[in-house]
This record gives sequence, structure tokens and C-alpha cells, in this order.
Amino acid sequence: MPILTKHFHGPQPMAEKLEKLPGFRDFYPEVCDLRNYVFDTWRRVAARYHFAEYEAPILERTDLYRRKSGEEITEQLFHFVDKGDREVAMRPELTPSLARMAAARQRDYRKPMKWFSIGPFFRFERSSKGRLREFYQFNCDVLGEPSEQADAELVAMAIDVMLEFGFREGDFAIRLSDRTAWMEWLAQRGISGEAATDVLKAVDKLGREEESKTAAQLAAAGTTLDEVRAFMARTEDVSPRATAISRNLAARGMDGFLEWDLGIVRGLAYYTGTVFEVFDIGKGMRAVAGGGRYDNLVNLIGGVELAACGFAMGDVVIGNFIEETPHAKARLEDWLGTRRSSDAFVIVGNESRRDEALAGVQALRRAGLRIDYCLTPRAVGKQFAAAEEAMARFAVIYGGTADSVSIKAMSDRSETLCETGALLSVLSKLLGRSSDT
Amino acid sequence: MPILTKHFHGPQPMAEKLEKLPGFRDFYPEVCDLRNYVFDTWRRVAARYHFAEYEAPILERTDLYRRKSGEEITEQLFHFVDKGDREVAMRPELTPSLARMAAARQRDYRKPMKWFSIGPFFRFERSSKGRLREFYQFNCDVLGEPSEQADAELVAMAIDVMLEFGFREGDFAIRLSDRTAWMEWLAQRGISGEAATDVLKAVDKLGREEESKTAAQLAAAGTTLDEVRAFMARTEDVSPRATAISRNLAARGMDGFLEWDLGIVRGLAYYTGTVFEVFDIGKGMRAVAGGGRYDNLVNLIGGVELAACGFAMGDVVIGNFIEETPHAKARLEDWLGTRRSSDAFVIVGNESRRDEALAGVQALRRAGLRIDYCLTPRAVGKQFAAAEEAMARFAVIYGGTADSVSIKAMSDRSETLCETGALLSVLSKLLGRSSDT
Repeated sequence: MPILTKHFHGPQPMAEKLEKLPGFRDFYPEVCDLRNYVFDTWRRVAARYHFAEYEAPILERTDLYRRKSGEEITEQLFHFVDKGDREVAMRPELTPSLARMAAARQRDYRKPMKWFSIGPFFRFERSSKGRLREFYQFNCDVLGEPSEQADAELVAMAIDVMLEFGFREGDFAIRLSDRTAWMEWLAQRGISGEAATDVLKAVDKLGREEESKTAAQLAAAGTTLDEVRAFMARTEDVSPRATAISRNLAARGMDGFLEWDLGIVRGLAYYTGTVFEVFDIGKGMRAVAGGGRYDNLVNLIGGVELAACGFAMGDVVIGNFIEETPHAKARLEDWLGTRRSSDAFVIVGNESRRDEALAGVQALRRAGLRIDYCLTPRAVGKQFAAAEEAMARFAVIYGGTADSVSIKAMSDRSETLCETGALLSVLSKLLGRSSDT
Repeated sequence: MPILTKHFHGPQPMAEKLEKLPGFRDFYPEVCDLRNYVFDTWRRVAARYHFAEYEAPILERTDLYRRKSGEEITEQLFHFVDKGDREVAMRPELTPSLARMAAARQRDYRKPMKWFSIGPFFRFERSSKGRLREFYQFNCDVLGEPSEQADAELVAMAIDVMLEFGFREGDFAIRLSDRTAWMEWLAQRGISGEAATDVLKAVDKLGREEESKTAAQLAAAGTTLDEVRAFMARTEDVSPRATAISRNLAARGMDGFLEWDLGIVRGLAYYTGTVFEVFDIGKGMRAVAGGGRYDNLVNLIGGVELAACGFAMGDVVIGNFIEETPHAKARLEDWLGTRRSSDAFVIVGNESRRDEALAGVQALRRAGLRIDYCLTPRAVGKQFAAAEEAMARFAVIYGGTADSVSIKAMSDRSETLCETGALLSVLSKLLGRSSDT
């Protein structure tokens, strides 16, 4: 049989050659729903904080990223020369684009500018669990407000995002630090310039790098592991800014989520003040979000002084964390149930009434209801099976009797008969909503 | 002054060098809102039709596009070799990815699969009005249903999308054709193979190409402009499939939007049956969406037979059309008003009550309200100005008296006093919603 032959011999090599790239994801409907749940939650909390949504291009000039991070960034970039002979890169992060956009038009906006964005990012990384080459990020920034009250607003928002996902106290913590505390401490020891950067890099890798290596790096920079550890043990007065943030969160009843942790320095030289990370409290102790103050970046990229702070949360780690946390997963599943269901499934019990049924489908949809039906003739039993599959709350049956329809609740098969012309109002009532729309 | 010097001499060359790429857009908040309105409308109508959302990677193997469209497609691609030595391309359209995904997992889904997607696409084109290098598309497809009832469902959906944007009869039309009618007509004349393709290409360009050139192309293929025009004048019985689609839409009360137009052949060889385009009826006569049946593509790409039809609508042309159509624009503006407004602006009238105010902000947000406030101390007048800017419906003022707040309607400054503990319930009532959430 040619079809069988094709199934066994034809498609395999083809499919192999054209399969998706490693580190990229196919969002089949059931996975896309999960992605949308994460987006919806991010967007909902951002709206409560009255942040405005923006978006930047997915492709930018490679120099934009070099300006911020230097030449080494290109190791992780999907970058190339376009047909117009420009060096371009698929964005690995949003902040350089934000700085470019803000510098160009900040005069048009009242300060502080509270902006957020949700979109895809690209990094050429070795694939491993939770590390993909295409991923989504939620970016939230406050521009034009130098006070630590802006940092506090962002920390509060990060906490509310976690709570909105269904996480609770004990599931996660915010670790807060201030790079200025480190800079002061280093200055007291006469450590500056490259040596200071080396110390912060070593601190950033503490616990992830061999201790002997860290100790050697610190010695080369003019300090010791013991000195560093003693400083990191500080649990109060990390900095006046950090203390003010803590007070602000206490007023909101949110300081229970806060921990001091001078070990948080956030790698690159980019941050200028307070920095923070959201951690899951579990074996993983993964960072699920991170951010801080970066008052110099807008100037570096766009030549305009503009105070700034922000944080980003990726979809991959938070998705895994939700899957592993029963009470967060339950909230996701509630959302999915509502999202995937339909309001009614229209069943053509008598083919001579198909046109009437189509008119019914259309009228219900026009009123905003989510309506499904079998596109072509099927036995009534099969149509009911399709209604179950479509997670319909009601079946609307166009049967033998002209001018009337039967509405059956899919849960208990209880039946309501009504005139065809009254379908929308009767069904709306059964669904518990008004039919005015 | 160094700062002035920098403003006049420093930033300009920087900003120039790092500006966005031509044909790409910065979505500042006011533009992003418009984008979100389009997305929201697309998604809302798709939900009513109970289509499931999916998404594919933004980067794919270049061969995926070559398989469908041949080598010439690379002229329009942003394509390059990645660090893993793979030929890759930023997607110029979604259908090849959909075909790849559907072929790999179609057995897991009940047929028909009614799927939609909203995402960005990339084509290296000469910039001109309405032609960008990065744009968004709404893609809707029905897979696994060979009957014309699926085509009809998609045409109905395209019409409902237009109506949901606020367009009316007279603003737009659906032009329906069937490539099989052309194939039969060509076969009757003994025109087949490449000559047949050349005729369809000439028909596709009718009115956009010089008549003499078209006439020469048709003559070379074995027919004439007069013969072609006589065939295109047919206004009924274009094909049995087209007639069935028309009947289906008549049952829904939607056939008023339908026109026969054999001039619609949709360029490439990709389509196998009915094809349609949504046109604005105006001077422009732009196509705002297009689609049709493509029963061979899933097999070509994934080696699996799967009937398919679909359409796509881009954000750029529809955005321009909305802007130019007063009644559609009014609907957009209503949406923007609701979207940009906030429920309340919290005003700290007495700085000693800032902590209380922060607690209030937090409690209201936790209940789902959209709340803004000034992050740092400001005169009460300036806070009211910020409340206006934030399009707040109410101002909540923490003034001189402990344990009570004043709620002022921003519209008429009418005042309601309440105990601090009752703020959420009183404000919810004023906003016309329950405070149960």
C-alpha cells in the first residue's frame, strides 16, 4: 500500500531535516495555554500597579548590546549581517532597547515612567534544564525616579506577581542587597577599579565555583574569603537605601518576604545601587527574577541622564516552579479549565435544520459567547462526544421540532426547551450572564 | 558647562548609531496600546469560534521555507548561519511551521483542529507605507477537514473580526474565488504545467502590471486577455465549493459581504482550492487579509496527508484602516479609554500618614483594583494633577484625620468619607463592582 509505505519510509527523514531548532519550543495549544496563563498573570498585576505596556523590536543593531556589555556579549548572540549590510542581533535582553527608546523620547512622558513589557528573547546557550535559546521575559522598569521608593514599588510588584501565581510565604523570598555597600567596603580597603570588579565577580559565583579558586581570586584582588564572609554576614544597615526599601515594604505588610543578602551582586557592572533577586525556597534555590538600580545606562546608550531601576522574570523557571508547587499548580488548572471550556456546543439533530443551527451559532457568537459545533454531519452521539471534548457547559440541540430548541446542561443533562428566537436570552440566563451585550 | 556640551555634541552621533533598524517599530506605550487592541480583538473573536491558540518558534531552519516556496524565498529572508552551523531564518510567515507541527503530532488531536496564533514575522522588504520588516499576523487555520464547511467557518470568522473592529457593510468585502475553476478552464484550453502557472501569475497581477505586458504573458501561455476577462466576468457557479460556502454564509446572514472574484488567485502555487481576500472598499482597495485551502502543504513539509485551509491578517494594514474609518476608530478609542484609566489614585495629604496610604494602595491592588500614587512626597495639588494624568476615576485622600479617608470622584469632585478599614468595600461600591475577589 503506498500510504503505508509512505508512513514507514517517506516522512521520517523529511521530518528529521525540518524539525525545530534545539533550544526552541513548539507551543502546541496545551503548552500555549500555559504560556498565556503566565502572560495573563504578569499583565494583570502590572495593570494593578498602573504600569504601561511597551515593546521594542526583536532585531536590533549589534552595537546596542556591545555598548552595554562589551564585545564578549556576541558569544551568546544570534547575530548576523543583514541584506542592508548592517550588523544586527536578535535581542538577548530588553534593557538596552528600553534605554535607547527612553533616551529618545523621555521628554514626552511624565516622570516616573512606569513601564512593562512581555516578549521573546534569544541567547545561544548550551541547552540544559531551564536554559533555552528562545524564552519569554516580563520586564518592569521605573524611569526618572532616583528615590528608593521606586525600587520598593518594583520589589512589591515582584512579590505580588508571585502571590498572584499562588505562591505563599515559605515558597519564595526576596534577597536584597546594595552594590554601594560593597563599593564603600572595597574603598575602605583601597580596592578599586578592576580589582573591585573582580571581587564582585567572585562574590557573584560564591557557592557555584570551587572555594580554592574563589579564595585565589580574592587574594589577587587584595582581600580574603574570611573578610568577605564576615562582611556578608551583616544582616542590618546594609545601606540606607536598603533600609528605606524594607520600611516601605513593612508599611505594605510585605516585609516578611524580604531577606538581606550581600551575596546578591548581579554579575555585570551595569547595576549602580540596590539589587535584588526572587528565589524559590526549596532544594533548587533558583533565582526566578532579578533586578536593581542602573542609573547610568540610559546615558551610556542614549546620552541622556535618567535614573532607572527594574527587574525581569523569565517564563521557563517560573513555569517549572509552578508545575512543582501544588497550590500554584491548582490555580493554573482552574484558569485552564475556564479558558479551554466553551459556553455551548450546537448540535444538529436533524440535518434539515442545519441552516437554522448555523444562524443560531452565529447569533450566539455575535453576542460574545464561545460556541463550537461539528462542521459536517455527524450522528448525534458523536456530536455529544465532541461537545464533551470541547468542554461545553451546554448543548443546544436543533432536533425534530421546528421553531424550538432544547438546551441541555452537559453536567447533569437537565433540559430546558425554548423557542428558537429566545435562545440567546435563555442560554445567557443559564450561563449566569446578561444578554445585553 | 560639561552637561550642555554633552547635550549638543555628545549624544547625537551615539543616538544615531544606535537608532532602531529601518522597517522595525518602537512600540511606545500609546502605540503598544493600539497593538494590544488589535491583538485583543483577534483573540476575543477566535475564542468565540472556539479556536485554540498555539505558537511556533521565531527562528526556524531555512529549509522549511525553501521546501514550501523554493530558493527565491531567501531574497526576502532575514537568514544566517547560527553558531551551531545551521542555516536558520527568522520566520517570514507561519504556515510552514504550522505544517511541521501538525505533521508531527496531528494524531494527538481530534479533527478538525481549529487553531490560531498571533505573533511577529520578518521580511526584508523595501520600506514603503504599510510595508514593514517586522509585523504581526493573526493566523487562523482548520486542519483535518476537507469539506468546504471549514472554508466557510474561516470566512465567517474573518467577517466577524472585521465587524468586531467596528467596520460595517460597505466598509469591506470578501472576494471569493476557486483555483480549481481556473485549473478546469485552463485544462479545457490545453494549458497545463508551467504555462498554467504563468496564466495565474498574470491574473494575480492584473491591474497592477501594464496591460501590454500581461497580454504578452497570456499570449505566450496560449490564451488572450479577452478570453481571461470573459471568464473572470462569471458571477455565479464559480465552483461547487464556492457555491456551498455562499450558502453556508447565507444561513448565517453573512452573504451580503461576499463577492465572486476570479481575479483572486493568491500568487503562489501553494493553494489548492478556494481562495479569498478581505478588501477595504475605498480608494485603496487594499487586501487586509487573505487565505484559502492548501491540502498538500502538510504532506510536502511533514510527509503526512492532512487537509487544511486558513487565512492571515496583518496588523499594519488593519491598523491603518481603523485609523481612517471614524466608526472603527471610535471603538478603538473607547477601548483605549478603559485600558489607560486607573480605578483610583491614592493621595498622601499628610506625610505622617504615608505608611497607612501604602497599606491602602497594597490592599486595593491585592483586591484587583488598578491603583496609582506618587512614589515620593508632592504637594496635594500636584498629586491631583498626577491623578488626572493617570485617568483615575477616584482619588483616595489620606489627609489630616487619622482612621478615615476621603474618596473623591475625579469627574465631579463629589466626596465620600469613610473609615480606613472600610475603604475597599466603599470604593468597590462606588466603582460598581463587588469586593469579594
